Amino acid sequence: MSAVTTVSLHSLNTADKAAFTVALGEIYEHAPWVAEAVHGQRPFASLAALHEAMVSVVRAAPAEQRMALLKGHPDLAGKAARAGAVTSDSKAEQASAGLDRLSEAEYANFHRLNDAYRAKFGIPFIVCARRHSKDSILRHFEHRLQNSVTAEPKAALNEVFRIAALRLDQRVEAPDKLKVHGRLSTHVLDTHAGHPAAGVKIELAELAAHGGPRAIASGTTNLDGRTDHPFISRRPIPIGRYELRFHVGEYFTRRGAPQSDPPFLDVVPVRFDVAEPESHYHVPLLVTPWSYSTYRGS
Amino acid sequence: MSAVTTVSLHSLNTADKAAFTVALGEIYEHAPWVAEAVHGQRPFASLAALHEAMVSVVRAAPAEQRMALLKGHPDLAGKAARAGAVTSDSKAEQASAGLDRLSEAEYANFHRLNDAYRAKFGIPFIVCARRHSKDSILRHFEHRLQNSVTAEPKAALNEVFRIAALRLDQRVEAPDKLKVHGRLSTHVLDTHAGHPAAGVKIELAELAAHGGPRAIASGTTNLDGRTDHPFISRRPIPIGRYELRFHVGEYFTRRGAPQSDPPFLDVVPVRFDVAEPESHYHVPLLVTPWSYSTYRGS
Amino acid sequence: MSAVTTVSLHSLNTADKAAFTVALGEIYEHAPWVAEAVHGQRPFASLAALHEAMVSVVRAAPAEQRMALLKGHPDLAGKAARAGAVTSDSKAEQASAGLDRLSEAEYANFHRLNDAYRAKFGIPFIVCARRHSKDSILRHFEHRLQNSVTAEPKAALNEVFRIAALRLDQRVEAPDKLKVHGRLSTHVLDTHAGHPAAGVKIELAELAAHGGPRAIASGTTNLDGRTDHPFISRRPIPIGRYELRFHVGEYFTRRGAPQSDPPFLDVVPVRFDVAEPESHYHVPLLVTPWSYSTYRGS
Amino acid sequence: MSAVTTVSLHSLNTADKAAFTVALGEIYEHAPWVAEAVHGQRPFASLAALHEAMVSVVRAAPAEQRMALLKGHPDLAGKAARAGAVTSDSKAEQASAGLDRLSEAEYANFHRLNDAYRAKFGIPFIVCARRHSKDSILRHFEHRLQNSVTAEPKAALNEVFRIAALRLDQRVEAPDKLKVHGRLSTHVLDTHAGHPAAGVKIELAELAAHGGPRAIASGTTNLDGRTDHPFISRRPIPIGRYELRFHVGEYFTRRGAPQSDPPFLDVVPVRFDVAEPESHYHVPLLVTPWSYSTYRGS
Repeated sequence: MSAVTTVSLHSLNTADKAAFTVALGEIYEHAPWVAEAVHGQRPFASLAALHEAMVSVVRAAPAEQRMALLKGHPDLAGKAARAGAVTSDSKAEQASAGLDRLSEAEYANFHRLNDAYRAKFGIPFIVCARRHSKDSILRHFEHRLQNSVTAEPKAALNEVFRIAALRLDQRVEAPDKLKVHGRLSTHVLDTHAGHPAAGVKIELAELAAHGGPRAIASGTTNLDGRTDHPFISRRPIPIGRYELRFHVGEYFTRRGAPQSDPPFLDVVPVRFDVAEPESHYHVPLLVTPWSYSTYRGS
Repeated sequence: MSAVTTVSLHSLNTADKAAFTVALGEIYEHAPWVAEAVHGQRPFASLAALHEAMVSVVRAAPAEQRMALLKGHPDLAGKAARAGAVTSDSKAEQASAGLDRLSEAEYANFHRLNDAYRAKFGIPFIVCARRHSKDSILRHFEHRLQNSVTAEPKAALNEVFRIAALRLDQRVEAPDKLKVHGRLSTHVLDTHAGHPAAGVKIELAELAAHGGPRAIASGTTNLDGRTDHPFISRRPIPIGRYELRFHVGEYFTRRGAPQSDPPFLDVVPVRFDVAEPESHYHVPLLVTPWSYSTYRGS
Repeated sequence: MSAVTTVSLHSLNTADKAAFTVALGEIYEHAPWVAEAVHGQRPFASLAALHEAMVSVVRAAPAEQRMALLKGHPDLAGKAARAGAVTSDSKAEQASAGLDRLSEAEYANFHRLNDAYRAKFGIPFIVCARRHSKDSILRHFEHRLQNSVTAEPKAALNEVFRIAALRLDQRVEAPDKLKVHGRLSTHVLDTHAGHPAAGVKIELAELAAHGGPRAIASGTTNLDGRTDHPFISRRPIPIGRYELRFHVGEYFTRRGAPQSDPPFLDVVPVRFDVAEPESHYHVPLLVTPWSYSTYRGS
Repeated sequence: MSAVTTVSLHSLNTADKAAFTVALGEIYEHAPWVAEAVHGQRPFASLAALHEAMVSVVRAAPAEQRMALLKGHPDLAGKAARAGAVTSDSKAEQASAGLDRLSEAEYANFHRLNDAYRAKFGIPFIVCARRHSKDSILRHFEHRLQNSVTAEPKAALNEVFRIAALRLDQRVEAPDKLKVHGRLSTHVLDTHAGHPAAGVKIELAELAAHGGPRAIASGTTNLDGRTDHPFISRRPIPIGRYELRFHVGEYFTRRGAPQSDPPFLDVVPVRFDVAEPESHYHVPLLVTPWSYSTYRGS
């Protein structure tokens, strides 16, 4: 099943057990029994109800089965992922956090952490990669390694549920939405002229502790001073550091605003960290050729 | 004569012609005749009067002598500079703009421009290097190459006067100052707490079109929210692009201000261009954990 | 016909001439012939088309008829208005600009201006009162008095068309809207806490050159930092001076934000002038206990 | 002794006891014994040392003498003050807080509070009036009335010391200063043009709970965007509510900045409360024709 194939909640509600289990068999990694177990509860009034039912099945399962579920997950940036021996979901998820393009040193670091984690907890390290950048996964990994052996399986299971929610969100079309989406948007107001700044080129980059910035998105403001689409939406915003770059110098030059030569402000960088992947980060710019303000807005 | 040896206006006013000419002989590159010619006008009431007298001598000199003065200057980033066969002033001035640490490609580029310039105008390219970064010298160079053969010698002479003014300013102690100094300062106001932000680490870097940022200065704000000394003062601010980096995340963490984890703002970059080397660029930051403003202040 | 009785474009399109003329007979003051003349052009695809048709009828009418139309308007703040001898539309329109509660001195001033205007132009002074405050009507009146006798009838007719558009907008329900509405809204962002400020009491007052401020609207911000409804909408914003008053002191006290005693900021007044009645004036406040910003936003 | 007669610390240090006591006899109200008692400690190295010595004498005096000192103070806004039967210092101090121009209702209110206070504590209510506006004296009065009979005399004595420090500061010229001065200043930065705003008219008014604003000071910004002198300095800033009014509309009109008609911003009011009379309140304005920011600066 490819990432883009979707199924409607309605058709799931009328599917027989085999079709239902095929459709949702990979929501939980290598654990089609979760889908199978909820088939009898059809019809589901909402996607949230389906998700809750599957979560309940996992929570109610015997401890050994839950541990088997955890153990069924691939190592992050591990040999299986490198060799392609993971579900297509896992592959895409790991790629979303940049784990498919690690340096040898980073790969070695993950290898070391994976070994330490397995040695301490007896399970692979599981994290909902779509909620993270590479840096935040590493920080999170180091942090989780400090957990007690009783606390950590709960933390791991929590991540399994997050992964499942995002997979359901991608796979199933339903009238309701799971709360798994964030939004990163911006707005440019020209306080020199007193109206929205149209035609301002903006780039969004992800910054990493090592290595240069990675371009994520770019756009140009419309007549309302906004980009036509948010830079990130319909997915969690990976926890991490970002930089918006507003090309205001060329904007004010085009408008004929008096500036120094070269202009005092050319490309304005606004750097910020995302801590809550499911939140709305609205980061506007109020700008003249000589000043600007930015803030976490709403 | 080393760059640090200074002489007082008072002692110049009482010096005999030989001593006077030695003291000021290198204000104009390889042209001690300028100093010699103004000796008879002593005493000078001010440094400005001395400077004006020397400028007048140059302007009144026969055209051939003025051309010889221009021709006496070394190429920028040229073989003479590389070989050390220039005055110590010229050497220090070229180094101040980074011309002593060019890549081979940049060296070749200067070589090409020098040749084209000499071919068109018959003189070496002269620019007051202390007023420039490497990038702005190159832009300026390309721009000057477009001048007409009648206009360019005047532009070159203007640079010679700027160089002379800066040399005088460094060499002669006097009650008055020539208008050759700029100032780059900052200030951090914590608008979350309503008082100056003390203990904020700040770095100043010069940005270049090619190559990474070059650290220029750093400091930590005092109780008044300022660095104890301006980042740049008592000299022109080289025309160029700069970035101030305010470490506000650790400041607010230390103060116990509520923040997200990681903090929304960690290191705030403020990027701006300097166009007027002899001006005051005051670039403050008004900041909370969730917002900031900056502007060209005074 | 009361101000609240509305009729649908659809029913107008199927109405006979008598009903049509009754419904739209007062769109132009004492000039039902305008409505009557466009009846034959039914059906109208849009409200805009109906408005344009009526405008065209007036423009194409003989000059004497147009003058009669102008002369049919009552004096502003005149004896007829005082005595109630004007259409209910006129009465409501004059009241909207405060012309029904003038002081004797103001009444005398209008009387004087009306006389001067009639003496110069031979028609009553006509202005679309819903687009004005009392102060701006007076300024406008003095300004129009300076017009030439050839230019002024065009200015008067333009106001007649504005009045007609607003009356149509109020009377006829249609899928489209005439561009006769402005909007005045606000938004409070707590940049101390990094989220919208909920529960901030806000008042809007109209300021006048003489006499105290007049309360127009008030509200309290919701979880999104906005009032549930714009302070002014679905009508032109009268040209005039306004003050928003944001009760931020009690907001920050309630949130337990550290403040001085008494708080540095209690009620923040933001005073501004509206020049374009059909525009959107969004006037937000970004605020901490020690600072605030405001701007004309979008 | 009039308020403007000053004496130098040097001459006090060499004065005989009679002259010394005359010079400082009214620093403590009707208590020349305080000055007399410190005469033997001459010479005083600083004004602070003189003040501390006098404070120590009061603290070390027998309880009855301290109570007599407290009882020697006139009622605030009392009959003695109205009849002129108080020291010239007291008279000027009460006037500084506006207590010489109370309405009959306010006078009656003070009368009632004075009676209640005397009935509870057996002394007149003493407050350093120069640190207060009328409103804050009333709030302070109500607050002090809640004190216990053991705590209140200490609070009263503390006010006596504040009054004495301010009287010493006014009367004695010395190299050092007592920490009794605050400062209220402003600054206007034109972020539309990127430089200080020169020629902006500014007014400072004190706002009161009842009655209109009271003009305190006004000025026009110089080339540096500041008024030549702070609006309040060399004295405490009375605790109270203030409004700065920046005439930015006429400033931008004069500069030819594009604005709406009428301008969006004309007179910008900035309203704030002073809680710390001995502090520096710097309240700047960063302004364009369409936006502004203000904050408690430094």
